[in-house]
Amino acid sequence: MFSVKKILQRPKYFNNRTYQLQGWVVSNRGNKKVRFISINDGSTIKSLQVVFKDQSFDFELLDKLKNGSGIVVEGILKETPQAQQPIELEATKIIKYSVADEDYPIQNQEIKLETLRELPHLRHRTNLLRAIMLVRSTLAHEVHRYFMQRDFYYMNSPIITSNDGEGAGETFNVNDGDKEPFFGKDKKATLGVTGQLHGESAALGLQKIYTFAPTFRAEKSNTKRHLAEFWMIEPEVAFYDLYDDIALADDLLKVVIRNTLFKNKDEIQYLNDNLDNSLINRIEEFLNTPLKIVEYNDAIDQLAQVKHLFENQDIKFGLDLATEHEKYLTEVIYKAPIAVVNFPKDFKAFYMKQNDDGKTVASFDLLVPGVGELVGGSQRENDINKLTTRINELGINKEDLQWYLDLRRFGNVGSAGFGIGFERLVMYITGVENIRDVIPYPRTSGNIRM
Amino acid sequence: MFSVKKILQRPKYFNNRTYQLQGWVVSNRGNKKVRFISINDGSTIKSLQVVFKDQSFDFELLDKLKNGSGIVVEGILKETPQAQQPIELEATKIIKYSVADEDYPIQNQEIKLETLRELPHLRHRTNLLRAIMLVRSTLAHEVHRYFMQRDFYYMNSPIITSNDGEGAGETFNVNDGDKEPFFGKDKKATLGVTGQLHGESAALGLQKIYTFAPTFRAEKSNTKRHLAEFWMIEPEVAFYDLYDDIALADDLLKVVIRNTLFKNKDEIQYLNDNLDNSLINRIEEFLNTPLKIVEYNDAIDQLAQVKHLFENQDIKFGLDLATEHEKYLTEVIYKAPIAVVNFPKDFKAFYMKQNDDGKTVASFDLLVPGVGELVGGSQRENDINKLTTRINELGINKEDLQWYLDLRRFGNVGSAGFGIGFERLVMYITGVENIRDVIPYPRTSGNIRM
Repeated sequence: MFSVKKILQRPKYFNNRTYQLQGWVVSNRGNKKVRFISINDGSTIKSLQVVFKDQSFDFELLDKLKNGSGIVVEGILKETPQAQQPIELEATKIIKYSVADEDYPIQNQEIKLETLRELPHLRHRTNLLRAIMLVRSTLAHEVHRYFMQRDFYYMNSPIITSNDGEGAGETFNVNDGDKEPFFGKDKKATLGVTGQLHGESAALGLQKIYTFAPTFRAEKSNTKRHLAEFWMIEPEVAFYDLYDDIALADDLLKVVIRNTLFKNKDEIQYLNDNLDNSLINRIEEFLNTPLKIVEYNDAIDQLAQVKHLFENQDIKFGLDLATEHEKYLTEVIYKAPIAVVNFPKDFKAFYMKQNDDGKTVASFDLLVPGVGELVGGSQRENDINKLTTRINELGINKEDLQWYLDLRRFGNVGSAGFGIGFERLVMYITGVENIRDVIPYPRTSGNIRM
Repeated sequence: MFSVKKILQRPKYFNNRTYQLQGWVVSNRGNKKVRFISINDGSTIKSLQVVFKDQSFDFELLDKLKNGSGIVVEGILKETPQAQQPIELEATKIIKYSVADEDYPIQNQEIKLETLRELPHLRHRTNLLRAIMLVRSTLAHEVHRYFMQRDFYYMNSPIITSNDGEGAGETFNVNDGDKEPFFGKDKKATLGVTGQLHGESAALGLQKIYTFAPTFRAEKSNTKRHLAEFWMIEPEVAFYDLYDDIALADDLLKVVIRNTLFKNKDEIQYLNDNLDNSLINRIEEFLNTPLKIVEYNDAIDQLAQVKHLFENQDIKFGLDLATEHEKYLTEVIYKAPIAVVNFPKDFKAFYMKQNDDGKTVASFDLLVPGVGELVGGSQRENDINKLTTRINELGINKEDLQWYLDLRRFGNVGSAGFGIGFERLVMYITGVENIRDVIPYPRTSGNIRM
């Protein structure tokens, strides 16, 4: 059966056809002789208007089919070249219906995002959330399609792991409430903060892999950009160096964003009109501007010259760029998406490849105008001695990582990869400011609604 | 750059081309004047043989490039119509290499699956596990592609939830180790056993959705078919009834299996030859045999006539079919894949639609020859009174499910969906008998390796 999305794309083709529409009422007006009921079927934010004018209809029932009611209605599609919508349905028969209770909370489209956050099980029945969620879905599909077409192996790193990835702490513990621990005595069992380390094992043998799965951080920071549970896209490619890695990130972003923009034109237009009127411009600018590669050292030099502009003015080698610096670099100084490369090793993860200068690692952050960092990645250290030394320096438990070190002993010619926080990417192409609005059921400190 | 898989598909096209091969040594033989090194690049289980005969090569080094070593080598592709492999690479230059340590544990292909299970970070470097993992990845991609092409919305149900889904207990608890619970006092926080309930909320408004994500069971049963962490495919479609639902399951299985068989022909042939020589026959039989729909009552009648064949002989209304019964039904009685429908409500979940007989629910199990159950699904109860009564009967906490009950008040004309354990499906089309061998890092009671 065709969706409303498909019908609105080719009204001429569907003109005069019999059609069975299934969906939910978003508006209902008229009188006792003719009723106009707009129905959304979930395939697009646009609705299809159904006209009831046959007097054999029960007009009292039609009056009761208020917002939120479900309906299956049969009729004939009719082109309406004069109207705002190119086509409508002239109803001949109601097949099924379910009248929504009167306290249905979505009576209009003017409800604030904050209020809708209290209704995660219903909020996607507004235009705004529907648009966001449709874009989210398309974007996820495009990510899978991108890797599929390029013969990447889709790898499932474990969620429950004895390994805490970045060594950054802030992990959730898992147990089954028994005295005897489920996974064995003296065994850590935490929720994974990254799929990368296990992903590296797969890349060593399958060459091109990616993970796309939930990851977890038990951070109590309650900001607009942090979730305790979020989805990550993490490719890892054997034989890649830092610059191959950056090229992959740039290409991935541009391809999936371009395709999503094309497939969800109506939704992104709606978000542009209702949420952030610089959205489409910003996306198109991003798509049309080649990425620049900027040495961390050069970025610091540039920022130091205008340090009076920033809250954090201590701008010198060793600074971990904050969003204010990132945005200034990409928006004002370079006027383009940029990959800042070769960061000081001190604030980067233990597994990144150490450069010959002894001070920096072969890492990159990809920054875009409007939001700052979208991607972070690196070439991995494949020298087992350097890696061991770094693990010892940082006081990370080496025993847990023996298997990871072993990957360096068996034909590892190097690999590189990166991580994209999926929700941050959805925010970027929807213009949504609060990360709680781009995931169906957000989890944050103190919030586990439903 | 082309993969070995692509080159082997069209040797004529690649003949005489310069090519840079990246991969890992799987065999190395020859003498001090000519070396034959087979290299696998991860794109297929087949390897490409590289011939080193130019005397300027360092033959002592070539001798050291034993199994597992990584190499990037340049050369000219040459068709070899007489040989087993249609094409080989005549090496001109070694670009990079990394010699594997001598204790590399995968020296040959005769290692048992049990032994390989102790090496999850390396085992995909055998033909057997490489074949399984490539099939797993293709199958996952095909599942996403199936739904994508049919405009299903890919929905991410929460992993950490205050809701235990089936009400079956056996959930993992999540905490961050603080005295103050991360998600709030008196709040349950468990790992989801299903994405369905949240998925239903999305279907009510987006109409066609699916989840494909990890789910969790803290079951201590240590069988060949159970994992504590496994991936589930769960579509949910508003307006669907039981029979729409079954048709979707049947079509999904047939399309994704057919496509995977086509895309991983070499891998499935290898699995057929080395693991289960009835594999390809069984799959093709499944693809070519239409699904039959069988009433639970009829299935019981049939089984009762041959009850002496079974371990559990108490065959009457109320029996929860065991694998022995399922296999007999599909393999012997109906000789086809079957959907058994309308099970007794007593052993089925609270949310299934109650039939008019007061005893059964609108549910189905899809059974296939060789393994038994592959899919379980149902139409959902959308009568809020019947649903509430059932929740009370079963002693499930109604407060936790208020939001789920609310979905019945706001335009719910019914929906249906099903669940497929993804690892079970991978087992089915690889012929693997132990579920631990079809997921990269299996988690079971007492096992959280790496």
